[in-house]
Amino acid sequence: MKHLLSISDLSKDEIVALMDTADRFRESLEGRSVPQLPTLRGRMVFNLFYENSTRTRSSFEAAGKALSANMMNIAASTSSVKKGESLRDTGLTLKALGADAIIIRHPLSGAPQHLAEVVAPGGKGPSVINAGDGRHQHPTQALLDAVTMRSRIGDVAGKKVVICGDCLHSRVVRSNVDLLSTLGAEVVLVAPPTLLPVGVENWPVRTSADFDAELPDADVVMMLRVQAERMLGGFFPSNHEYSALFGMNEERSAAMKPGAIVMHPGPMLRGMEMDYVVPDQDKSTVLQQVTTGVHARMAVLYTLLANEDLA
Amino acid sequence: MKHLLSISDLSKDEIVALMDTADRFRESLEGRSVPQLPTLRGRMVFNLFYENSTRTRSSFEAAGKALSANMMNIAASTSSVKKGESLRDTGLTLKALGADAIIIRHPLSGAPQHLAEVVAPGGKGPSVINAGDGRHQHPTQALLDAVTMRSRIGDVAGKKVVICGDCLHSRVVRSNVDLLSTLGAEVVLVAPPTLLPVGVENWPVRTSADFDAELPDADVVMMLRVQAERMLGGFFPSNHEYSALFGMNEERSAAMKPGAIVMHPGPMLRGMEMDYVVPDQDKSTVLQQVTTGVHARMAVLYTLLANEDLA
Amino acid sequence: MKHLLSISDLSKDEIVALMDTADRFRESLEGRSVPQLPTLRGRMVFNLFYENSTRTRSSFEAAGKALSANMMNIAASTSSVKKGESLRDTGLTLKALGADAIIIRHPLSGAPQHLAEVVAPGGKGPSVINAGDGRHQHPTQALLDAVTMRSRIGDVAGKKVVICGDCLHSRVVRSNVDLLSTLGAEVVLVAPPTLLPVGVENWPVRTSADFDAELPDADVVMMLRVQAERMLGGFFPSNHEYSALFGMNEERSAAMKPGAIVMHPGPMLRGMEMDYVVPDQDKSTVLQQVTTGVHARMAVLYTLLANEDLA
Repeated sequence: MKHLLSISDLSKDEIVALMDTADRFRESLEGRSVPQLPTLRGRMVFNLFYENSTRTRSSFEAAGKALSANMMNIAASTSSVKKGESLRDTGLTLKALGADAIIIRHPLSGAPQHLAEVVAPGGKGPSVINAGDGRHQHPTQALLDAVTMRSRIGDVAGKKVVICGDCLHSRVVRSNVDLLSTLGAEVVLVAPPTLLPVGVENWPVRTSADFDAELPDADVVMMLRVQAERMLGGFFPSNHEYSALFGMNEERSAAMKPGAIVMHPGPMLRGMEMDYVVPDQDKSTVLQQVTTGVHARMAVLYTLLANEDLA
Repeated sequence: MKHLLSISDLSKDEIVALMDTADRFRESLEGRSVPQLPTLRGRMVFNLFYENSTRTRSSFEAAGKALSANMMNIAASTSSVKKGESLRDTGLTLKALGADAIIIRHPLSGAPQHLAEVVAPGGKGPSVINAGDGRHQHPTQALLDAVTMRSRIGDVAGKKVVICGDCLHSRVVRSNVDLLSTLGAEVVLVAPPTLLPVGVENWPVRTSADFDAELPDADVVMMLRVQAERMLGGFFPSNHEYSALFGMNEERSAAMKPGAIVMHPGPMLRGMEMDYVVPDQDKSTVLQQVTTGVHARMAVLYTLLANEDLA
Repeated sequence: MKHLLSISDLSKDEIVALMDTADRFRESLEGRSVPQLPTLRGRMVFNLFYENSTRTRSSFEAAGKALSANMMNIAASTSSVKKGESLRDTGLTLKALGADAIIIRHPLSGAPQHLAEVVAPGGKGPSVINAGDGRHQHPTQALLDAVTMRSRIGDVAGKKVVICGDCLHSRVVRSNVDLLSTLGAEVVLVAPPTLLPVGVENWPVRTSADFDAELPDADVVMMLRVQAERMLGGFFPSNHEYSALFGMNEERSAAMKPGAIVMHPGPMLRGMEMDYVVPDQDKSTVLQQVTTGVHARMAVLYTLLANEDLA
């Protein structure tokens, strides 16, 4: 595996191998007095973020440092981008600086794919990891979600996963649908019709606008963040109405079957898509997802970089 | 010791132990060709700063790196905070990312205490270090001040310490009064009445508006920064008048007794609370305080983290 | 060598020694499975940037990390500078924090010299490295350019180097003219008369406004960045006219003699001083310059710091 651009590039075996590697890192770190491995010492990994995301950036930074890589942060707001440099030239510059991997967050769908073609033509050059591109993909989020699910409900094949909220603007949805359908889960998207993706009829999912009808037999309910910064267009009448129809609250939590879990990629807006109680219930995996995120990103960095010399 | 939230939580023995540890780190680093200790290798320490403070942040970063910890910086201006995440959820996220300690600077008094309760209920979880909260406390500043004083004038018990300037908005004052009174020093706050803290009559200090009367027998004169950004309300008529009444200058320096010192937590506004000459005199400890700050913060990180497994 | 403030401070032997050291680091890193040397472990190096430059800052950071130094970034936009602290006091603070070197980028010419006098009076104190000061000097850029030239055209003595573009605002020009004339190259500055430096008649260069006349026998053509942010004053009528007279394009590239190279310090504005084709031709050294920059900066850090104890 050279890059991680989209879950749709991965076979089922590759996905499971990454998930298993994440679990092994969890076990490996838990037993050590010095929770740091020398695996990537001297390797240079750039966080190239064209959108702010302290959460994702910190998770990758923690993962890289746990493997002893040299982590370098480039925030687009202070970078050469402002002097008019193209993504292509920025990518080639990072490669020339000695980058072994470039982790990119970009508002445009497809930017990571473009970067990979530029910096590693013919597969020679730094690895590119997609940390979220537009409404397209966020593959490490889907990986950490899958690892979290497996630890709580076992194999997801045949399980019912409800994804609820703003499916239109969410890259989390696309990556998760790809991964979950590859692993054989049944996926239901719950959203108001205005917030379903264009072309969703061709996805391997069911859709519904009735959250309460889908809840009782779900094994997993994954809540999406209401992206207030993208919602200026008025996709629904009011915050209150959104919460009433599509929010997770105590009543809905109580309607779920035993052992079912509630997930959220964070950051949460309590009082909006989640109430103030459910995130702290045992069935909530919000914080476990954060922890698993470090292990999943270690697995990705390890898989892409540790055997690079042999590739 | 689990957290460092306020000097008032510490016994005299705990304070002296931290001061002694700071001194030992100074000695230990001075003798080494590689001035870095492996003590905290693999430990993850977050600088979570809701106010800019390059000085304090860099000092903690230098201290952590000198102990080989992995230091991660979170600036609130680019963080999830902007997406509406609460301090509670941010703290739990850092814990889930693997934080061993969270160093927090926050404009609200009490924020570090709140964070500590959230991330380490029952004492299990990351350590919290208060790097300044509102007008409340700045305990590592008081520690480094005490270590600096001891190196210059010996035991502070029975010594007279004059603290001069804006005592109303200063968290440095509160931490220093707590620490110095615990160690048995006599503390005098010199300020215009409008810049004395509410309730100061219950503090273990004297107050005065006559700087010149208090100077001659002081062992330590600690000048406070004029926080221009907090002074918009017009607490005194003019900069010139402030300097004339409460500024440190050559004339006042000459009035001090031999061996007495002038301190300032920095950054200084030369020409305002300090003139252009005194900061460079031998009696000024401004730069020694910066150096001691690294050792004092190493002592805090070491005390909180190095024996965590045994706690 | 204590500081690196200006190429004009260096003898020919010192320049060649730095170039040779850069080449040795390139060879040394290429052969290692772990591309990191322990040379500067425990040393603290500050990037003190009063102007944004992701490219230069990242290059120094990569160089320092490749030598295992502890790198600390201070961006002036978030620093104590905003609270009114002078460069002098900021420098003394970094020294007191334990700085072994301070890398400074500053909009004012002479700031690094001032800083060096402040932090290392009599040569005792941290080393200062000029990472660009106003229109004055950018010595590590000139060093990496020289190393790049030597690897492509051999010894530059007697070779013709054309530097084309905005020579008025460029510190790259001054450093390169100093270095190239010391090494015995023939330097021609090509620019519209309004963009030639004041006093250029006293420099060891020829000047010309006819790019096409100078091209055919040049061994090196170094294009300068059009600093749009400094050009508001309208130094030339239009972008189009600038490109036509002073831009590098396919036609001009074809007019160059075999083996000659085209250089650019980056970031490039394709379509302005460079077209969209030439930067990707074999004769372009744009990316090689980036890579060489890391080695040249390693050489500088190594030369200034590795033997400091013996100095």
